Amino acid sequence: QIVEHVVNFLTPAEQILKGKAVVITAGPTREAIDPVRYISNHSSGKMGFAIAEAAAKLGADVTLVAGPVNLATPNGVMRHDVESAVDMHAMVMSLAEHTDVFIACAAVADYRVAEQSDHKLKKSGDDSLTISLIQNPDIVASVAQLESNRPFVVGFAAETQNIEQYAIDKMNRKKLDMICANDVSISGQGFNSDQNALKVFYAGGSKDLPLNTKSELGDELMQIISTLLPSN
Amino acid sequence: QIVEHVVNFLTPAEQILKGKAVVITAGPTREAIDPVRYISNHSSGKMGFAIAEAAAKLGADVTLVAGPVNLATPNGVMRHDVESAVDMHAMVMSLAEHTDVFIACAAVADYRVAEQSDHKLKKSGDDSLTISLIQNPDIVASVAQLESNRPFVVGFAAETQNIEQYAIDKMNRKKLDMICANDVSISGQGFNSDQNALKVFYAGGSKDLPLNTKSELGDELMQIISTLLPSN
Repeated sequence: QIVEHVVNFLTPAEQILKGKAVVITAGPTREAIDPVRYISNHSSGKMGFAIAEAAAKLGADVTLVAGPVNLATPNGVMRHDVESAVDMHAMVMSLAEHTDVFIACAAVADYRVAEQSDHKLKKSGDDSLTISLIQNPDIVASVAQLESNRPFVVGFAAETQNIEQYAIDKMNRKKLDMICANDVSISGQGFNSDQNALKVFYAGGSKDLPLNTKSELGDELMQIISTLLPSN
Repeated sequence: QIVEHVVNFLTPAEQILKGKAVVITAGPTREAIDPVRYISNHSSGKMGFAIAEAAAKLGADVTLVAGPVNLATPNGVMRHDVESAVDMHAMVMSLAEHTDVFIACAAVADYRVAEQSDHKLKKSGDDSLTISLIQNPDIVASVAQLESNRPFVVGFAAETQNIEQYAIDKMNRKKLDMICANDVSISGQGFNSDQNALKVFYAGGSKDLPLNTKSELGDELMQIISTLLPSN
């Protein structure tokens, strides 16, 4: 911690995000079925936490909105813990209009259970069961649609096939400023790994960030974002 | 580790489970929806791991069959990691006939997704979605139904209402030798907590184990079980 402060003090020229408010979502969400069961996903939160650390090192005021993860809060980062997509949406929307950069790194559940049970569901005699799901609010699209004080909006696309096509389509459909695509079908990168590889797309450009630690990728990503902000 | 070995060496009289094979399931299972999403539950595995530690201290040969948890393997315990209920069932059935005591502490998913997708499901235009589930094998009932070399079978019932009634009904229906009921609707005990309270039912008796650390409860439980084994 002391070393980081000294490094930051010695290199004020690199505080290129000084005064910028950056909000980052990270981790999975959990969608309750009943008090015991839930639907979730394999996101570890490591990528989002690495980006938060990178942004803080560049001098930004960083807020993490984190789903249930087992990770320590990076130095100098404000953190709000949430469980469900609805909770995460509410927290992000309360912060979004005071934000310069919004990075939606969390693996938010697209759907939640239509009718949560207050009591643990009992197994019935039937061999089968259906769970009815309804769509969750689209957090990154909600922020991108803000009409006043809209931040620079970065989305993520974790895909298992047709990576580039899905990612660019998602960026355009949701009116994002940038999208980071990663292939979660390759083992050793993405979910739960300490490494990742990203393809970054934005208006007028793209960049390949090959396999690297999530910490290094966080640094690279924040450098790219800083060059794309309107005031730079 | 050294201290534990010395203690065990100094108190051979307490090795009351010496030579007994004990298999314990612990933690949740994860039922894949697609490569990214899954259904799971809030079990931390702490109770099962505490029981495994207690059984090992009493001299038993202990095998843990663990779902995805963030826990260290107790000293002297053999551990097999599994993900889904189907995997856990297969592992347990491969061990059951060579087991003296089987303790089903895992929070096994009653249902799995009928048709897992090989690729990440894409959100469609629809506002809603249904997931079809089919029943998983009933691990504790499968062991209790063994016709040869059937171990002493202990089940768990995590309930949010009518605790005692559901637990006794489950014990009788599944032909278990013992059932441990806990009320997961009370915060500060059960899932994810370091403490728990159990009501234990068995043929001809019952015992209240009031709120205590899971470690102490594991000791108490293994002491009760040891008095109920046929050879004692």
